[in-house]
Amino acid sequence: MTITLADLAAQINAQVIGDPTQQVSSAATLEEAGPGQISFLSNPRYVPKLATTRATAVVAAMNVNSDNVTLLRTADPYYAFTQAMVILHGHRRHPHAGIHPDAHVDPTATVGEGTILYPGVFIGPNARIGRDCILYPNVVIYDQCILGDRVTIHGGSVIGQDGFGYATHKGIHHKIPQVGNVIIEDDVEIGANCAIERATLGSTIIGKGTKFCDLIAIGHGTKIGAHCLFVAQVGIAGSVTVGHHVTMAGQVGVSGHLKIGDKVTIGAQAGVINNLDDQSTVMGAPAMPVSLGRRVYTLFTQLPDLADRIKKLEQKMSEIATDEDS
Amino acid sequence: MTITLADLAAQINAQVIGDPTQQVSSAATLEEAGPGQISFLSNPRYVPKLATTRATAVVAAMNVNSDNVTLLRTADPYYAFTQAMVILHGHRRHPHAGIHPDAHVDPTATVGEGTILYPGVFIGPNARIGRDCILYPNVVIYDQCILGDRVTIHGGSVIGQDGFGYATHKGIHHKIPQVGNVIIEDDVEIGANCAIERATLGSTIIGKGTKFCDLIAIGHGTKIGAHCLFVAQVGIAGSVTVGHHVTMAGQVGVSGHLKIGDKVTIGAQAGVINNLDDQSTVMGAPAMPVSLGRRVYTLFTQLPDLADRIKKLEQKMSEIATDEDS
Amino acid sequence: MTITLADLAAQINAQVIGDPTQQVSSAATLEEAGPGQISFLSNPRYVPKLATTRATAVVAAMNVNSDNVTLLRTADPYYAFTQAMVILHGHRRHPHAGIHPDAHVDPTATVGEGTILYPGVFIGPNARIGRDCILYPNVVIYDQCILGDRVTIHGGSVIGQDGFGYATHKGIHHKIPQVGNVIIEDDVEIGANCAIERATLGSTIIGKGTKFCDLIAIGHGTKIGAHCLFVAQVGIAGSVTVGHHVTMAGQVGVSGHLKIGDKVTIGAQAGVINNLDDQSTVMGAPAMPVSLGRRVYTLFTQLPDLADRIKKLEQKMSEIATDEDS
Repeated sequence: MTITLADLAAQINAQVIGDPTQQVSSAATLEEAGPGQISFLSNPRYVPKLATTRATAVVAAMNVNSDNVTLLRTADPYYAFTQAMVILHGHRRHPHAGIHPDAHVDPTATVGEGTILYPGVFIGPNARIGRDCILYPNVVIYDQCILGDRVTIHGGSVIGQDGFGYATHKGIHHKIPQVGNVIIEDDVEIGANCAIERATLGSTIIGKGTKFCDLIAIGHGTKIGAHCLFVAQVGIAGSVTVGHHVTMAGQVGVSGHLKIGDKVTIGAQAGVINNLDDQSTVMGAPAMPVSLGRRVYTLFTQLPDLADRIKKLEQKMSEIATDEDS
Repeated sequence: MTITLADLAAQINAQVIGDPTQQVSSAATLEEAGPGQISFLSNPRYVPKLATTRATAVVAAMNVNSDNVTLLRTADPYYAFTQAMVILHGHRRHPHAGIHPDAHVDPTATVGEGTILYPGVFIGPNARIGRDCILYPNVVIYDQCILGDRVTIHGGSVIGQDGFGYATHKGIHHKIPQVGNVIIEDDVEIGANCAIERATLGSTIIGKGTKFCDLIAIGHGTKIGAHCLFVAQVGIAGSVTVGHHVTMAGQVGVSGHLKIGDKVTIGAQAGVINNLDDQSTVMGAPAMPVSLGRRVYTLFTQLPDLADRIKKLEQKMSEIATDEDS
Repeated sequence: MTITLADLAAQINAQVIGDPTQQVSSAATLEEAGPGQISFLSNPRYVPKLATTRATAVVAAMNVNSDNVTLLRTADPYYAFTQAMVILHGHRRHPHAGIHPDAHVDPTATVGEGTILYPGVFIGPNARIGRDCILYPNVVIYDQCILGDRVTIHGGSVIGQDGFGYATHKGIHHKIPQVGNVIIEDDVEIGANCAIERATLGSTIIGKGTKFCDLIAIGHGTKIGAHCLFVAQVGIAGSVTVGHHVTMAGQVGVSGHLKIGDKVTIGAQAGVINNLDDQSTVMGAPAMPVSLGRRVYTLFTQLPDLADRIKKLEQKMSEIATDEDS
């Protein structure tokens, strides 16, 4: 749609610094935007691009100035830009409604109204899929699993495969029947090619509003709280409890049976092997508080210097000892 | 099914400490179990839950006591509970038998009796699938690959895609035809969304009884021994040889052309860059013997303290030098 | 096909050291090859196998000698062997031509001549697939994405799922419409079960001739240059720019918004958190120049020794202080 900056600013709660009668009809990056397009600035490293962008207007923070381009100033530019994107572009229009004939839904499964199943989706026996969900091509939902409303799952993700549970007896791994399920609560979004194991007993749970990126592995019986953000390739072992509003950066690993508190932030590639308190921010492998971690990793790359200084101290000490002996 | 504790105990080789005429019909966790349910205790951290569980009986080790609940004591409670799970619940009942009409089997491929292929499974030319296998939805088996009997592969896993082999000539990567295959031996279970490359020449092999969790990558020509356990997101490069009864924890990486011995255990996120002897237990990146690794990683997080101590030594040394000069 | 060593050597630019009238018809490893087969030696660790191989001939470097087997000597044995493989075996013969009836192509998508779509492939609205591409089973191409010519994508990979973009407002993660796409240029090969996100705005790009192994995650808006090689389980965050001829070993992670130069090499499991200059070679987490990294990681495993030496220095220092006090 085409909209004046005045109208757009009113809807996204921004202030126009420039001509409010100008019109925009789509969004683009600062580099690629041209006349009739809106862009945004939220990462300070891109401030220099403000001087050269050809966008009609840029959504930016309250303290940003520009001689080059009209600004839509707002307290939270990233959120305001998100609203502008929804107004201008909307979300994906799907090529079909409801259950595509090339999706496979077991007769005992239920699928709520407004839910879209793309070709190649599999819904197993007794699974229950809520309303207004979107399951992209080749998503697999095993038997007994439950999805809430407005759940989105991207292509190739598998929900509810058997937990990795074996009892090893005389060198043979005996499979433990995995009679639990996976429950995915309302408003969750799961990326592509993730793998979320069903619980041996009870449920693996992904809490309301949580968002997963791609290639994430969740172990059996793990319970993830609400409104978490997990970046790509995170792996969580089984029987872990994760609080709400937890952020895990890419390739984080969490060992089994741990308790991660609320509002915890975990840096990329961290290896979590202990419980984490609410609001803690950790990094590294093994994961440690970020204040410690920054010092540890700085010193880590300075190990050759530390080793040289130890060697020099030893030499001096040896000279002193020689002096004393003499 | 419903069974008395006496009958169940006889079948799982346990001793009833309590009323053997009580009946159970299903299993649940210590927290969630109620009357008519059996639970188990194998991880010592859950001992306190024994006092509050509402389960009818709990499978536990010989030295466990409880005032609260009937115990089924046994030498190996995890294995005994596994047996109880099989007795009470059995394994998954599949919604169809044989080859689902929405699976795609090349006319030149063979599929053994009793094997179940879910919708979306692809079996390529000349592939041979054994008896009593289960291939869950959207599993892909490339041409020429061979699966033994009782192989289970979870949703989305791909077996036999081309090995990552290119000869780089004048800056261009020329694809090497990948004319080998993958052989998966009897009783292997593969998790969801794994990727096992075919060999350039010869075979990539997954040995009998080995179990893979999810999102595991195996390089071309790698040979994994029997009865291994690989946790999620393990990645093994090409031309590696892994012995039998090897355990790799989550996110382990193994470089190419290495030889990993029998009964080796590798800790989570380890990076293996050297051959490993039989029965070794390693951790860390680079992987090192666990006895060394524990000290190294403890000292690693103490680097700020070590650096401070070096600084203090330097100061004292400087004072001594000054004293001597004076 | 069957071919004399003389003819084969002429085609792969090699010199026959032995009887050029011998014939070969296939290729095998040094260990597995028998009469009528050709093998190759490029990794020096396999030199001893030259003495025992039963191959008719072995492609090898100019300085290699053997009493046991005829050699085809050439400057670049790996490339020459690749050519021999193509001559003897060719590339995969597909079980069907064109679009398999069990593939799903949106009516608004276009698919070039000579392109093969296996069963279970999904091509979304307005996607454009070039000529002579091969999309293996269950590959998913989202709407608007563009593939060049001769692109190969292995089973289960997903191209163009939504970027991981949310604006968090009052504790709720609001989805940003992902209106960009993915562009995969000519001659790219993508492994199995990869996940390449579409850009929020503009395009995620995979450059011409680049090759990906399996289970690789690429974030939204990231632009990968030409002729790169990424090994399995690499993860690149969003808005990263990667130059041409960049090699990333297995399980490498790259943080968002970075610029990686041309001809960069990154060691396995490295964690890249800073821009990297052209031609740099880095390793470790955090990634550091390999010359530094080798010393750092050697000292890392020697931390117990360093700590002992600090302790000894402290003891000696304490003795000196006591001496001085006395």
